[in-house]
Amino acid sequence: MNNQETEPASAGSPNDKMEELRRQIDAIDKQLVDLLVQRQQVIERVAEVKKKHDLPVFHPAREEYLISARRSQATAAGLDPDYVEDLSRTMLRNSRLGQLDTVSSAGAKPGARVLILGGRGGMGRFFSRWFQHSDYEVRILDRDDWDQVESLTAGIDLCLLAVPIDLTAAVAARIAPHLPRECVLADVTSLKAEPLKAMLGNHAGPVVGLHPLFGPSTKTMDRQIVVVSPGRDPEKSQWLLDQLTIWGNILVQTTPEEHDDIMGIVQALRHFATFTFGQFLHARKVPILRTLELSSPIYRLELVMVGRLFAQDPSLYAEIIFATPERLALLKDYIQSLTQNLDLLQRVDKTEFTNRFREISAWFGPFGEQAMRESTFLVDKLVHRF
Amino acid sequence: MNNQETEPASAGSPNDKMEELRRQIDAIDKQLVDLLVQRQQVIERVAEVKKKHDLPVFHPAREEYLISARRSQATAAGLDPDYVEDLSRTMLRNSRLGQLDTVSSAGAKPGARVLILGGRGGMGRFFSRWFQHSDYEVRILDRDDWDQVESLTAGIDLCLLAVPIDLTAAVAARIAPHLPRECVLADVTSLKAEPLKAMLGNHAGPVVGLHPLFGPSTKTMDRQIVVVSPGRDPEKSQWLLDQLTIWGNILVQTTPEEHDDIMGIVQALRHFATFTFGQFLHARKVPILRTLELSSPIYRLELVMVGRLFAQDPSLYAEIIFATPERLALLKDYIQSLTQNLDLLQRVDKTEFTNRFREISAWFGPFGEQAMRESTFLVDKLVHRF
Repeated sequence: MNNQETEPASAGSPNDKMEELRRQIDAIDKQLVDLLVQRQQVIERVAEVKKKHDLPVFHPAREEYLISARRSQATAAGLDPDYVEDLSRTMLRNSRLGQLDTVSSAGAKPGARVLILGGRGGMGRFFSRWFQHSDYEVRILDRDDWDQVESLTAGIDLCLLAVPIDLTAAVAARIAPHLPRECVLADVTSLKAEPLKAMLGNHAGPVVGLHPLFGPSTKTMDRQIVVVSPGRDPEKSQWLLDQLTIWGNILVQTTPEEHDDIMGIVQALRHFATFTFGQFLHARKVPILRTLELSSPIYRLELVMVGRLFAQDPSLYAEIIFATPERLALLKDYIQSLTQNLDLLQRVDKTEFTNRFREISAWFGPFGEQAMRESTFLVDKLVHRF
Repeated sequence: MNNQETEPASAGSPNDKMEELRRQIDAIDKQLVDLLVQRQQVIERVAEVKKKHDLPVFHPAREEYLISARRSQATAAGLDPDYVEDLSRTMLRNSRLGQLDTVSSAGAKPGARVLILGGRGGMGRFFSRWFQHSDYEVRILDRDDWDQVESLTAGIDLCLLAVPIDLTAAVAARIAPHLPRECVLADVTSLKAEPLKAMLGNHAGPVVGLHPLFGPSTKTMDRQIVVVSPGRDPEKSQWLLDQLTIWGNILVQTTPEEHDDIMGIVQALRHFATFTFGQFLHARKVPILRTLELSSPIYRLELVMVGRLFAQDPSLYAEIIFATPERLALLKDYIQSLTQNLDLLQRVDKTEFTNRFREISAWFGPFGEQAMRESTFLVDKLVHRF
């Protein structure tokens, strides 16, 4: 308040002025939300038209056009265009999700009969809900329902295996003799070679292997990845792939062998490395909360990934890590490869470390730039949201 | 277009209708940006008032009030309140940053003379820019400037050491005899015990150790952490801490010993674990791009953290990893602790794995919940932004 005497008398106290400016901001923010409500109403009409005429929900070119237009307007008015783009993307995403709710309820083959094995487990319930929402007739066969297998399989179009990895082959063999000849047999386990072999060996009709790269707590399948390993008669399971696409998934095709190789790295090795890191923190009794207070956002992000693993179901991780002998060999190889660094530490050889580092950097290539950009974006979100 | 006959004649083709609806959305979006421009103008007036009257930029209570008001309005109008909160936080953040630009230029001790050693390195240039922006008189002493040491140190209020870790102690010893008695001597290296000892041992005046947990590419210090280890005469370096706070930093106090212990984990161990993971991917020639296509968002996030490390300067990591004998012992201990898992893999002992997992989970305690919430938020950002 020391500077108050330098104000013209009419201006009032700084607090009065602040209050007046804050009232103005409140009024603007209220108008902003009113406009968002109007926008939502138009979006709902768009969704109706799209649903009626089978038009796709996404139109990336249209989204980029909208963003460019708003960026130009922002720049012309002296606003940061990145800021306006950030807001626009949030709005576009919200309208996509809203439209999906309406549009996706149509379904690629509405009325088709879907039997879900393990339908009371996490992923089973997840798909059961989505199929029902899209007007399919959904039946469940869980472990205690085998006495009703004949009635449950009668006239079904799809049999989806959503059981633990180590049961998939056995369950495929058990259900196959009861399936109609033209029924699609599919699984959603995180291995592909063995389940596909079991499905192809026991069922003579159409077969497809799926691996959704998300868990049952996922709220939307918008832009989630589903890995697809074709088995037999792909044209007969095309409607199932279409349905996944309608739900917003991005489908990526692989052979079962490539899938299992890459998942050894993506899932088993990564989870195992995270497990061992958490194990070491535990063994050393590292004070987690104090450590977080003294953490850069990047380390906080890394520790969050460790904490995330240990907040989940250990049996899921045990299944993934101990899935195949190849996988166990990979993990042993990993541990053994680490011991080569003992020598480096012993010798305090910074030059050798730097040389190895450069060699690995070169091998990563342009991914490094992408990784910097994506992680900087995320760290920024982490610093400013929480 | 099959359903066109069911439309009333006046409604036009679906494409015409879509065009009309899109025009409406464009118009709404244009009005939204107009309002953002108005908002920005009011924010600028707020910043002027705050600067004139030394009012703080942040007002968390006020921010939460605004968010609650907009959430209620959204809920009443049938909009998703989380969506509106998301937009509101982006706007609040933008206005905070804009205000910082204006408000922070005042400075806690404007006109004070700041000498930065290593002022042409990354962190040196960073602080040089910020001190200048806040109306300090900034001088640089880099490795070739020692012949001008007398004129550079004349009448200075702060001497800031921004040199590599392994030089900090030697540089402190060399500069100290030239410093005015009341000059604050501070460093920004990522170790604290040894640099503080060297500063206290060579300079009789005020001393404070700082460790900013961010790199020189950081655009803003808004909500960044700076670790503070007090040395001597803390009241005489208070203006420096105030200046860091004005720039938006959050200050966390530690002893040098606690700092170095925790940084062994936060920086050395985590970087080393990430290094060894990248090294293994390289040794196995894992196809990174294909792997990314087949990755869940969480794994993509983990791989991004690995790619980020290798996109940076190896000498920085070498410095951190090889900093002290205690650190090297910690890393050797880490590698050796991993080998205990070989046996677990050999025996395919899922039960033992699950037991260890549960024990570690229990030790992490409530952090697990926080980690799930934060990582889910980030994964969501990663899926929908890129």
